[in-house]
Amino acid sequence: MENIDLSEIKTPADIRKMSLPELKQLASELRSTLIEKLAAHGGHVGPNLGMVEAVIALHYVFDTPEDKIVFDVSHQTYPHKMLTGRMQAFTDPAHYDDVTGYTNPNESPYDLYSLGHTSSAVALAAGLAKARDLKGEKENVVAVIGDGSLSGGVAFEGLDYGATLGSNFIVVVNDNQMSIAENHGGIYADLRLLRNTNGEGEPNLFRSMGYAYRYVKYGNDLKSLIEMFQSVKDINYPVVVHINTVKGLGLKPAVEDKEEFHYAGPFDSKTGAPLYEGPKDAPESYDELFAKKMLAKMKENEKVVTITAGTPGVLAFDKARRLEAGKQFIDVGIAEQAAVDVASGLAKGGMRPVVGFVSSFLQRAYDQFSQDIALNRQPATFVVFYGSMFGMNDETHLGFFDIALLSNIPNLLYLAPTCKEEFEAMLDWSIKQEKLATVIRIPGADAVSNKEIKVLDDYSKPEYDIVRKGEKVALIGAGTMFTYMSLAADMLAEQGIKATLINPRNLSTLDTKTLDSLKDYSIVITAEDGIIDGGYGQKVASYLGEAPVKVINLGLPKKFLNRYNYSDLQKECGLTPDQIAQTAKDAL
Amino acid sequence: MENIDLSEIKTPADIRKMSLPELKQLASELRSTLIEKLAAHGGHVGPNLGMVEAVIALHYVFDTPEDKIVFDVSHQTYPHKMLTGRMQAFTDPAHYDDVTGYTNPNESPYDLYSLGHTSSAVALAAGLAKARDLKGEKENVVAVIGDGSLSGGVAFEGLDYGATLGSNFIVVVNDNQMSIAENHGGIYADLRLLRNTNGEGEPNLFRSMGYAYRYVKYGNDLKSLIEMFQSVKDINYPVVVHINTVKGLGLKPAVEDKEEFHYAGPFDSKTGAPLYEGPKDAPESYDELFAKKMLAKMKENEKVVTITAGTPGVLAFDKARRLEAGKQFIDVGIAEQAAVDVASGLAKGGMRPVVGFVSSFLQRAYDQFSQDIALNRQPATFVVFYGSMFGMNDETHLGFFDIALLSNIPNLLYLAPTCKEEFEAMLDWSIKQEKLATVIRIPGADAVSNKEIKVLDDYSKPEYDIVRKGEKVALIGAGTMFTYMSLAADMLAEQGIKATLINPRNLSTLDTKTLDSLKDYSIVITAEDGIIDGGYGQKVASYLGEAPVKVINLGLPKKFLNRYNYSDLQKECGLTPDQIAQTAKDAL
Repeated sequence: MENIDLSEIKTPADIRKMSLPELKQLASELRSTLIEKLAAHGGHVGPNLGMVEAVIALHYVFDTPEDKIVFDVSHQTYPHKMLTGRMQAFTDPAHYDDVTGYTNPNESPYDLYSLGHTSSAVALAAGLAKARDLKGEKENVVAVIGDGSLSGGVAFEGLDYGATLGSNFIVVVNDNQMSIAENHGGIYADLRLLRNTNGEGEPNLFRSMGYAYRYVKYGNDLKSLIEMFQSVKDINYPVVVHINTVKGLGLKPAVEDKEEFHYAGPFDSKTGAPLYEGPKDAPESYDELFAKKMLAKMKENEKVVTITAGTPGVLAFDKARRLEAGKQFIDVGIAEQAAVDVASGLAKGGMRPVVGFVSSFLQRAYDQFSQDIALNRQPATFVVFYGSMFGMNDETHLGFFDIALLSNIPNLLYLAPTCKEEFEAMLDWSIKQEKLATVIRIPGADAVSNKEIKVLDDYSKPEYDIVRKGEKVALIGAGTMFTYMSLAADMLAEQGIKATLINPRNLSTLDTKTLDSLKDYSIVITAEDGIIDGGYGQKVASYLGEAPVKVINLGLPKKFLNRYNYSDLQKECGLTPDQIAQTAKDAL
Repeated sequence: MENIDLSEIKTPADIRKMSLPELKQLASELRSTLIEKLAAHGGHVGPNLGMVEAVIALHYVFDTPEDKIVFDVSHQTYPHKMLTGRMQAFTDPAHYDDVTGYTNPNESPYDLYSLGHTSSAVALAAGLAKARDLKGEKENVVAVIGDGSLSGGVAFEGLDYGATLGSNFIVVVNDNQMSIAENHGGIYADLRLLRNTNGEGEPNLFRSMGYAYRYVKYGNDLKSLIEMFQSVKDINYPVVVHINTVKGLGLKPAVEDKEEFHYAGPFDSKTGAPLYEGPKDAPESYDELFAKKMLAKMKENEKVVTITAGTPGVLAFDKARRLEAGKQFIDVGIAEQAAVDVASGLAKGGMRPVVGFVSSFLQRAYDQFSQDIALNRQPATFVVFYGSMFGMNDETHLGFFDIALLSNIPNLLYLAPTCKEEFEAMLDWSIKQEKLATVIRIPGADAVSNKEIKVLDDYSKPEYDIVRKGEKVALIGAGTMFTYMSLAADMLAEQGIKATLINPRNLSTLDTKTLDSLKDYSIVITAEDGIIDGGYGQKVASYLGEAPVKVINLGLPKKFLNRYNYSDLQKECGLTPDQIAQTAKDAL
């Protein structure tokens, strides 16, 4: 077989002319090209390598973009991007960053949604199918969902509704027997049963929800996939096509350690070894600090439990640590709502649950935070990872909305530590006490010490720390922003302006006594590592609204930013120390 | 059989001594007592009448409160309250209001949670079971969930996790073949199949999720229930007990019209006729206005679709109207996340979806609002019902958190109409335009006209309406609060103070031009029908933080209030016209 010139593939129409051997050659080339880019650049490795054949078969059989495919979660769409006009972003290192890591309608009409949270594609596709039916049109609507994403409640809601359409609705379940880490949940035993019986066993989750059901044993075999997709194309009822794929196929290290290669930085494509190790003297990271501390606490107190919703790696709980924690480590699967409710049940049952969440994912569970934790006053602890402008910078994974989201829930204490010692003290206190539901937000920086920070034995009351006492100018720096405020205070001091520097600690309830002492100041500046709207600073501005003091709130704009540069954004927001100092001087 | 003295039943222990005939007599008396109270007082009729036997059987068999029962949703717990020390609240009219309509731990140790949102009990109970296992204890943990509640994603997440416990975990599915209205979703065909096959058919949803499965054909037969619960008591693996009950049993009108009698005000216990009709000349309600308008719009434009997540009655879409709307009315079942995502898919597919949500329930879908609507800029319309301090007043159903929740999401336009004409104009515009995702919050009052209000053809830009131009004092009244601000302005005018009166219309983006014109005022007062924290007024306070003008934000405290008195609360918040006028004078 001759090589295929990948640069000649501009749209899926270009592959629909190919013979099966040519398609196989194409799969092989896409895969090796992918491995080359992934090794050099990093990205979602396993999900994409396992989906090469399925994506080719989908575009070969279905008349995209008239036929519509919604991918869930869209981190498995690198091969899709390669076939839909974006090949150069995978073949040419100079263009590697031309595309995002997820589907994106700004890039291509073949991308229907910008999707980075799991489990929603089925309901979105059901809406598209309903629109088609109401308009009397005829295209195929396909949702592609991974087995890991199936555990999210909205996937079930979407399946439940989609089953009622009574028309063409094709749900492809990409079963690679993995979530980000291993799967957790009762449904996975059923998926295993179905795989073991070549799709013929009972019970069958999908049939119980109202779907016709087809199984593809070799989900990386183009011929099987094409024949199956051809058989369901233009079907006039809802059907699940369950395909059994190999996560990481074609890259031995990725097949052997599926969790490690779900997402990876640049690596040696032969050995899988990371190309870059961090500097040996790098400060400890907060996730490492968290995992070590929780392991120690769980050993010391059997009532302490650590919980994740499908992202143990975020909490630095690798396999060895999960094993060490044993029953005291719970992974509920990708199911943020259940994570919060299980924590509530554990707390009610006298345990001390600590849930670690990615900032952007915890928003799935707002109602459970509100009703099942806060209203019911269950003393669980929630630790927020990547809750920062310095965290993830994909528009689907932004970490600067959680202050506004959680700090306005009654009975929920929102703490923002500024350094390593304070994080540890807050976590210690939160686990020890048995009255308050607490959120602790990890700062968006390395876990370094700050000798100026006074730690407490009790964080239940709002008590701001006046780190330096000055006059006229008060700088209130929340969480990550304290460091920059502190540097701004240094700069002001050099210019003869002695500012009061405050660490508020608590972003959900105001320390009115301290704020009252600022009423006759000239200027109060707040800075937080989150959007200004609905956030901490606006509470201060409101409280001081009648006082003569001027209040300036610094923070982020209410915008979905995408792949921004961290330091550019910091500057745009006026959050560098010299900008903060200048703002103070200008206002004086 | 002698009558049972209900007042003698203080705890479930009192019924454990009874014979089966006595228990039957008890069921009969509980039911007639319930009917008497419900007819006089109103409440959740059907759910409770259908559960009398099951609740008796549960407390007869299980050693509550050591054995733990979590009810979902807990509106079906009136019989439970009667058996757990709160009989007087059902037998003595003077004490009818002693208990809430939901389980409440403040009332009784038999109530584990204050639960008013559906679908969370399974995950909560799974947490309780896990706590038990980790502590090495042995009690039974039971979750009771209605078939209607099953469609909520968190129920699925809870079932999925619960199946992995590998220990005692009993899920009782109370299948009365109804949600609030009829059920919608693929799983309901499976429940029907199971009922029709006496639990023996395949596929079986519960077995596919990893549960052992038992079926009780006569779910209102005490003997069957008791025997079944005895057979699963102390079981050491997860099991679903599917009981087939009759919603409204014992009250003919409630059996015949299950939707109407899900919840009802006082009624004639013979005929079911409501005891009180509203006054004939009452102003139109917003739900009626909404339903009529949407019906007209759907007729006029086949792209318009109305969506509910299991609460068609809230939108005033009764059976006749649903029939009239036909395919253009979609009920996704109790599945708020899917409702938002289906709307997103419909909008993407060129339709004009309008979703009606109860304020307190929409919080289930925050992530979908953020990711699948706002980030993806899908022009769907969301209408918020009961988003007001004058809406529902149970702590589980509060309507004053949605401004803070939704108005801080980028790309999501949050509109607060003040009167009938403005609501209609905003809805007209939102459906017509195809660019912006819009939330429209129904005011918490009757739908009355306000001749002072200027309606627009386009609400896309923040443009405050300066309804009256004054000086020094500006009163900005959002939504419901505009009326009170207007009355306050009248009072001030009588005292020679000519206040500027503003209707902001848009609560998500500031009209900075108008706000700039207030910088040299003495005082700006904002008032909103929601919590102050994270809300609209704080944005104004923040924006004007550097200006000399004083800003006072009025609104509600960040608290879960329970069964409060509307006018007392309004006074406590300083939101009556005379209080507002006084506040303005004091600040001058």
